[in-house]
Amino acid sequence: MNERYHEYKRIIEKYLSEYFDVSCKAPALLLDSMRYSLLSGGKRIRPVLTLEFCRISGGNPDDALPVACGVEMLHTYSLIHDDLPCMDNDALRRGMPTNHKVYGETTAVLAGDALQAEAFRSILLSGLPAEKRAECARILADAAGVDGICGGQYLDMLGEDCRLSETELRLMCEKKTASMISAACMMGAVVGGADDRQISAAESFGRNIGLAFQIRDDILDVCGADAELGKPVGSDVREGKNTFMGFYGRERCEQMIAELTDSARKTAAAAFSDSEFILELADELMKRYS
Amino acid sequence: MNERYHEYKRIIEKYLSEYFDVSCKAPALLLDSMRYSLLSGGKRIRPVLTLEFCRISGGNPDDALPVACGVEMLHTYSLIHDDLPCMDNDALRRGMPTNHKVYGETTAVLAGDALQAEAFRSILLSGLPAEKRAECARILADAAGVDGICGGQYLDMLGEDCRLSETELRLMCEKKTASMISAACMMGAVVGGADDRQISAAESFGRNIGLAFQIRDDILDVCGADAELGKPVGSDVREGKNTFMGFYGRERCEQMIAELTDSARKTAAAAFSDSEFILELADELMKRYS
Repeated sequence: MNERYHEYKRIIEKYLSEYFDVSCKAPALLLDSMRYSLLSGGKRIRPVLTLEFCRISGGNPDDALPVACGVEMLHTYSLIHDDLPCMDNDALRRGMPTNHKVYGETTAVLAGDALQAEAFRSILLSGLPAEKRAECARILADAAGVDGICGGQYLDMLGEDCRLSETELRLMCEKKTASMISAACMMGAVVGGADDRQISAAESFGRNIGLAFQIRDDILDVCGADAELGKPVGSDVREGKNTFMGFYGRERCEQMIAELTDSARKTAAAAFSDSEFILELADELMKRYS
Repeated sequence: MNERYHEYKRIIEKYLSEYFDVSCKAPALLLDSMRYSLLSGGKRIRPVLTLEFCRISGGNPDDALPVACGVEMLHTYSLIHDDLPCMDNDALRRGMPTNHKVYGETTAVLAGDALQAEAFRSILLSGLPAEKRAECARILADAAGVDGICGGQYLDMLGEDCRLSETELRLMCEKKTASMISAACMMGAVVGGADDRQISAAESFGRNIGLAFQIRDDILDVCGADAELGKPVGSDVREGKNTFMGFYGRERCEQMIAELTDSARKTAAAAFSDSEFILELADELMKRYS
């Protein structure tokens, strides 16, 4: 990725690592567990999108930092809860033991709960005008609620026991993954002072690359190292049940990713004059192998 | 309680029962589980306080309804998560099976997660001016985060394994119970257009009756039916470990409740001219037997 990505990532890491030093008096171990997951790496795609959409909408990315990091806190909470024994029951995340494996289930539930509240708090404590604070928090709440990631995770859990329909699969991914990526883009646009047409373009861009992102994840889950080695399309041997791979196979999945990315690129290029980095980011996400 | 209380309760129940019909397309069973806990009775103390503080600050209680019900959604999420097997592992709440007993742990975690987001959403979708929407959501986030109910619940869970200090016990109750009652009062004052002195009085009133409320809960937990029968002070037979009863015994607890309630009454009476119902409410909460 380019230099701007690394500069964004740097200020995001700095904000996240300092946020709880300044503003919280909470019990030390609960804070530890929140920071463990919040500062455990990750590509920071969502907050980077917020900062860049702010910039190409005419704003200063620094102004969007508390909003961008709010999105990352929300995302981190959802990962902690998704990993819980009663959800995906995962022992590892990004190669490290999951939150509940390190801190226990009680603390992990509370760390997630607190990170959701802190996500809103980061936005609402920012120095932005009230109209922008309220609008960004509203967008976050839409993406976080029952029609957003919680509804999506619920459908995902339902799919453990039964086969989802194609419509349900797409709905699950739109809610669980695309809604928050889309929200990240929209919030950046709002902070940067975008007009309605641009906010709508940010929403559509985010939704399309969010879906492409999820389909790529499905391919990587099924093909693993084969995907990384760039083996020819059609080399997948096993299919996930309620995944795009399970429904469509690798060839059609690669085609869908290309179409979604192309559509996202066109939308962004039409609405924003300085969209080079956003287009590059869409391409990187499409081609990634991890 | 007086007629105004019942009218407030009626419009709160109506808003809560209709909220998800209008605005949500979420999976039916997840919504069912949210509504199961949200509409399972309860005294609605917090939202009633929001509506009444709005009124005595010069506002129309109807304007504060989405804010008041946001507080109740937040409170409901915290009850669902507090009852989970990895927390208090409770099978009953208000005489009914707890959420996870009816819907399973996976759904209960997600219902709580979604209700937290919806609490913010209710406030942020309201027709209030942006400044009030943002300020109310900020107050809610403060009370919900790591320095609020999550920090309090964490201390409560710590206390399962060890004896808290008196300072920790008070801190636990301030965070876990008083912070959200205080926030409910402040938000009502903000919506009603209160000045800074009145908002500060609302905060102090809420914190004091919140602590009194928790001490009364401790007495009822320990004395049970004895408390209801109004047996003389000192008749308690067993003491909770990390509770006010465990630290101080019943006589001192009754005295603390009286002092806190008196202080709350004086604060409210000094800052608001039409505080009769608020004072009555403080008295009712002090004397309650359930």
